[in-house]
Amino acid sequence: EKPNAKRVPPPVVHYHMNNLTSTSDPVANRETILILTPLARFYQEYWDNLLRLSYPHELITLAFIIPKNREGNAATTALQEQITKTQKSGPEKNRFASIIIERQDFDPPLSSQSETERHKMENQKARRAAMSRARNSLLFTTLGPSTSWVLWLDSDIIESPPTLIQDLAAHDKPIIVPNCFQKYIDPKTKQPAERPYDFNSWQDSDHARKLGEGMGADDILLEGYAQMATYRTLMAYLAEDNGDPKQEVPLDGVGGTALLVKAEVHRDGAMFPPFPFYHLIETEGFAKMARRLGWSATGLPNYKVYHYNE
Amino acid sequence: EKPNAKRVPPPVVHYHMNNLTSTSDPVANRETILILTPLARFYQEYWDNLLRLSYPHELITLAFIIPKNREGNAATTALQEQITKTQKSGPEKNRFASIIIERQDFDPPLSSQSETERHKMENQKARRAAMSRARNSLLFTTLGPSTSWVLWLDSDIIESPPTLIQDLAAHDKPIIVPNCFQKYIDPKTKQPAERPYDFNSWQDSDHARKLGEGMGADDILLEGYAQMATYRTLMAYLAEDNGDPKQEVPLDGVGGTALLVKAEVHRDGAMFPPFPFYHLIETEGFAKMARRLGWSATGLPNYKVYHYNE
Ligand SMILES: Nc1nc2c(ncn2[C@@H]2O[C@H](COP(=O)(O)OP(=O)(O)O)[C@@H](O)[C@H]2O)c(=O)[nH]1
Ligand SMILES: Nc1nc2c(ncn2[C@@H]2O[C@H](COP(=O)(O)OP(=O)(O)O)[C@@H](O)[C@H]2O)c(=O)[nH]1
Ligand SMILES: [Mn+2]
Ligand SMILES: [Mn+2]
Repeated sequence: EKPNAKRVPPPVVHYHMNNLTSTSDPVANRETILILTPLARFYQEYWDNLLRLSYPHELITLAFIIPKNREGNAATTALQEQITKTQKSGPEKNRFASIIIERQDFDPPLSSQSETERHKMENQKARRAAMSRARNSLLFTTLGPSTSWVLWLDSDIIESPPTLIQDLAAHDKPIIVPNCFQKYIDPKTKQPAERPYDFNSWQDSDHARKLGEGMGADDILLEGYAQMATYRTLMAYLAEDNGDPKQEVPLDGVGGTALLVKAEVHRDGAMFPPFPFYHLIETEGFAKMARRLGWSATGLPNYKVYHYNE
Repeated sequence: EKPNAKRVPPPVVHYHMNNLTSTSDPVANRETILILTPLARFYQEYWDNLLRLSYPHELITLAFIIPKNREGNAATTALQEQITKTQKSGPEKNRFASIIIERQDFDPPLSSQSETERHKMENQKARRAAMSRARNSLLFTTLGPSTSWVLWLDSDIIESPPTLIQDLAAHDKPIIVPNCFQKYIDPKTKQPAERPYDFNSWQDSDHARKLGEGMGADDILLEGYAQMATYRTLMAYLAEDNGDPKQEVPLDGVGGTALLVKAEVHRDGAMFPPFPFYHLIETEGFAKMARRLGWSATGLPNYKVYHYNE
């Protein structure tokens, strides 16, 4: 609990952050990565997908932040069970360098966490402000001076290419985001199909900028709601059948379901604004804040990860 | 260098941040504190003052960020020498829980660091943006999930009450700042005297707010320059002879020479904006950002710490 409380010969640790790299070949350069997951519900498919990541697990630290409520307790138990399996009895190559589980010190704003309830427009500001606080808490307390990369990965991302980290890092971008889709059974054809899930990755429009200018200082722009047409270009709709997974598009807003960030972007101060920042919050506000710090965001419309379907 | 690189049985660490406290009696509650110092020059008097702090040293972690240039190399050597003395051969009660030294991964914007050069108005924006980046790097990489408090302490603060931490914490405020003065010899009387040093702790004025509204989005308001009268109430001038050291004033901007912050304020996302944030940057921008997160700042006009006099 309090590592400082026990008296041990006190070490001095030197970190040469000027020698820390985050390159397009992170495996060859033995770059460490921190995978950060705010977690309200545990999905076995998320863990299985994580285990399949081919990035050397000994370079990966996992960290979770979990609400301190009943749902969070259940998620912690389920997560801890899988961790024990992987880290103690599973094959050594599957084991991660270290794992941190944090319990949140504030309550989630909504009692119900159903997809419909979460996505109601009037719930968005409070919910995403709370998500921002959770992300910031996790980030500020786990990023270390020898971390090269941060991968944000939501707990309901249940499928990605095993080479996710290498593939994203290969682009050598400060901030890069794949396209987050959802698989479902088409009710008409009864056939498996997929549809866009995350609408937070976009290119800005004059219309949205003007909407923002006409708003009160504390109002936020939201994406994906018919009541508030922004005419932004959404990465969700830029995916093409058989499109090149390496195709890049510049982005002004990013989603956080899966998001790779060079650690120096965060170290510079880029966080998830829980308050309206240029009328944006959470991951969208993060992209804007990073921009103010001189870092730009890139999207990969044809490189997909998949969100759980409730 | 890369703690993850060596394969050790991977631990799972649980942190119950909901049980973490930052109270008015941190010694009794065994609360850990992180003292953060951006350091360009090493002063022996700073180290001696640090050693005199009566807060239990085993609850204190020190962390430094030092530029990667010639001056920084010299400061690192001097600091390391004192650390070795204190941590290895000095009395056990003087030893700190742990010490982290980070070398910066970007260059300071000014080659000269003289007081006159530093304080030139046209140098302020670039200089304070670089200071913000240094502070953010240090903060993001050293704050841990069991840290209760953060004390920002500049490397040229050479005198403070030994009970500094307890005295400030006793007020039980999210952000609290003493008054930073400088001792000098009055050239007229040849007698020791003191004068205000830090003008970044202030209460806002309508005049300054209006100045801000008339500015370009990327312009900043600066304090302590005759060319830009702000009519703010400066804490520097609120000190009274024999004034009550416990007297509190609310603040809108804070200086960072000595600054106590509850860790949860930083965990929420409060950092030092390197970009103009409501026309404020660095520690003044930090106070504004904390305010947006719901945390307010308090000043102690009659509780003094002293800055080195070049
Ligand atoms: N720590 C924490 N995590 C949360 C909370 N609410 C949701 N999450 C997690 O944050 C991520 C995004 O939330 P989710 O509800 O899936 O958002 P959506 O898919 O955008 O509707 C997921 O990994 C959730 O498990 C919360 O209150 N606290
Ligand atoms: N890491 C780092 N520290 C710096 C740099 N410049 C100044 N400092 C330190 O930051 C603090 C504030 O800087 P200082 O020059 O004293 O500012 P002033 O007293 O407000 O003019 C002091 O502790 C300095 O040693 C820098 O470029 N990098
Ligand atoms: Mn989700
Ligand atoms: Mn100074």
